[in-house]
Amino acid sequence: MDAAILTIGDELLIGQVIDTNSAWLAMRLNELGITVKARFSVGDNMSEIRDALYYATELAPVVITTGGLGPTSDDRTREVLCDIFECEMQENEEVLRYIKDMFAKRGWPLTDVNRRQALVPDRAKVLFNKLGTAPGLYFEDGSTNIFVMPGVPFEMKEMFTNQVTPHLKKLAGNQVYVHETRVFSGIGESWLSDHIKPWEEKLPKNVSLAYLPAPGIIRLRLSHLAQNEQEGRELLCNLFTEAMPLVNEYFVSAVDEPIAATLLHEMIASGKTFCTAESCTGGYIAQQVTSIPGSSAAFKGSVVAYSNEIKEKLLNVSSATLQQYGAVSAQTVCEMALNARLILNTDYSMAVSGIAGPDGGTADKPVGLVWIAVASENGVESQELKLGGTREVIIARSAVSAMFMCLKEKRKEQK
Amino acid sequence: MDAAILTIGDELLIGQVIDTNSAWLAMRLNELGITVKARFSVGDNMSEIRDALYYATELAPVVITTGGLGPTSDDRTREVLCDIFECEMQENEEVLRYIKDMFAKRGWPLTDVNRRQALVPDRAKVLFNKLGTAPGLYFEDGSTNIFVMPGVPFEMKEMFTNQVTPHLKKLAGNQVYVHETRVFSGIGESWLSDHIKPWEEKLPKNVSLAYLPAPGIIRLRLSHLAQNEQEGRELLCNLFTEAMPLVNEYFVSAVDEPIAATLLHEMIASGKTFCTAESCTGGYIAQQVTSIPGSSAAFKGSVVAYSNEIKEKLLNVSSATLQQYGAVSAQTVCEMALNARLILNTDYSMAVSGIAGPDGGTADKPVGLVWIAVASENGVESQELKLGGTREVIIARSAVSAMFMCLKEKRKEQK
Repeated sequence: MDAAILTIGDELLIGQVIDTNSAWLAMRLNELGITVKARFSVGDNMSEIRDALYYATELAPVVITTGGLGPTSDDRTREVLCDIFECEMQENEEVLRYIKDMFAKRGWPLTDVNRRQALVPDRAKVLFNKLGTAPGLYFEDGSTNIFVMPGVPFEMKEMFTNQVTPHLKKLAGNQVYVHETRVFSGIGESWLSDHIKPWEEKLPKNVSLAYLPAPGIIRLRLSHLAQNEQEGRELLCNLFTEAMPLVNEYFVSAVDEPIAATLLHEMIASGKTFCTAESCTGGYIAQQVTSIPGSSAAFKGSVVAYSNEIKEKLLNVSSATLQQYGAVSAQTVCEMALNARLILNTDYSMAVSGIAGPDGGTADKPVGLVWIAVASENGVESQELKLGGTREVIIARSAVSAMFMCLKEKRKEQK
Repeated sequence: MDAAILTIGDELLIGQVIDTNSAWLAMRLNELGITVKARFSVGDNMSEIRDALYYATELAPVVITTGGLGPTSDDRTREVLCDIFECEMQENEEVLRYIKDMFAKRGWPLTDVNRRQALVPDRAKVLFNKLGTAPGLYFEDGSTNIFVMPGVPFEMKEMFTNQVTPHLKKLAGNQVYVHETRVFSGIGESWLSDHIKPWEEKLPKNVSLAYLPAPGIIRLRLSHLAQNEQEGRELLCNLFTEAMPLVNEYFVSAVDEPIAATLLHEMIASGKTFCTAESCTGGYIAQQVTSIPGSSAAFKGSVVAYSNEIKEKLLNVSSATLQQYGAVSAQTVCEMALNARLILNTDYSMAVSGIAGPDGGTADKPVGLVWIAVASENGVESQELKLGGTREVIIARSAVSAMFMCLKEKRKEQK
């Protein structure tokens, strides 16, 4: 079964508010095995809401809307629906009683504006709003089903989960849409595509593959409309298992999470600790790791050595190394990693030093040249990166590369 | 002038990726005085992309699309455009040369898949992609203008800013939509609104005011459709000057930039240096500062002391202090700030220690309790924060508060 999502509100069109409602709804609908054909947002303008609703009902038998249900004059969704379904607004006694109760409990006076919330198009079924005053609406017309919900995220989520979902399950029958994702690093999108071509070509027709790239990372996602969750998941996991020999060395995780989370969780699981010594990434790796709850169980800290003085003073990098090879060199990152591991007293350490730009590059050491190193009880290894992109992207890619190098080092030692 | 935004990609329809591109584009279009009539997202499906493009071109003379331009088989936007505009794909020599250069520089082999990126519909003008391999496209047909961009956010933003914006300015004609923004911190949205109420009520009718909140920060933006840029800017700057006596103590910057940039630039301007000692912010402040080009001129580094061991070992916090008062206390952050300033040899230092949650809180020291301190040649000052929100928000608010405290300290000493 297909659906379309329509979010309504001027604030969505000026970019001040990111439309998280429609992403949340898309996820829930997918879990229900309902394919989202399109998502769109229009402002609080009657003719545009009307046009969008017509377009949506042509695309899919289920249309879900949020927003435009408030009591103020800029909320027009109900009026438009009365027009489309040629019906009248009527005061709904049950809704009115509910609103009166809600206000009485809080000791607030009931104004005319609040009372207007009990006006409901007479062709609609009411979806009660347990967390607010604007009721939701359900219109059924032949094969068209329109679910109209408020735009306030927590009110909408409650209503969708408890009142819209049962209707949708009935409409959708038994199928579920199952997704599995694998995370890769150290390889570009087109290279990965070349590597897995023979596998991709043999994928069953009812399984779809998507490439989801981010700086330093590519996520591969398989999707399948299955008779039940477990069967679907098994099929997709088996397919990924077949692909693994082709791409094993680039594999990060079978869990769809940031690489910092994969690294952290593997460290915690084996009781190991780690730290970072960061120059051009400026604390980005430490920040990524510590954004994850519970990170203190394995992550002890970082020295952000942005100047050579700090590299010498806090990380004991020798001034001879800095003078002879420069801050961006294999020698310097290796000393940074080895010494950070000792000073911060951890099992593993990562070090990064590079030129993130836009200034600071030379012919010899251009912007995008980055050295990374990982130290462990087995010593130290380093790697040179030549990265493109903005300063932001160079920092993000350097950080992902260092974390991936550390992850591989850790996995190597487990074998 | 009106515009419609169309974002393309299956990942947008299953909610795994939040569509930040369309929110970003909506903001930029609004700044250019262009009204966004609708935003929509469709999957990588040729007939749906086609239908959506027809719907979009009916809605508005300018249509901006992102996504579906990659080299892999799930990227279909170019094919659809060839269909609509009845034209052929042709290898574009300039694009091919550019891609070859890019791969040569990085020492990567050029595959057939990469080469396919140089295929361009022959009716389109090419928009060069400075940060990736998929070129953008510009179709002009009577009053319809379609700008087709890649979906990778940093590639798209560069292309929109440097190549699409000049075309849009030409299309939009002579009026300019002028915006002026002032950044504030240390005050909530409703309090700020109360403070400036008398000023807000007297604003001219053709000037609009927006409150743009982010964790720890509120930006106030005045907008005005003017006959020329300079005149409009003067009007808005004068209006803000009138508001300043009401909100001076919360003022961060007259430049619309992150607070880390304001702090960095004021440090650089007066030849001062600074550093951070971070516990619960985990390197977030260092990362914010070093994300700004040229930060090495004033920022020397950070000690991310996530464990007490590191606080003692690298920042010389006394174990007696940690035992008696705990890591989250005025005493500990003051020692962290004072010692970091000496050890990293800077004019100013900031320290943060707190409980970011979701775990780790106690009745005595709940999640959201954070201490910040700033040290300078005049000694040290500390402040207690009691913050709400998720881990992410608590980290961001703590960082902003510490940076604002440091900024005020610095400005005090200049007087």
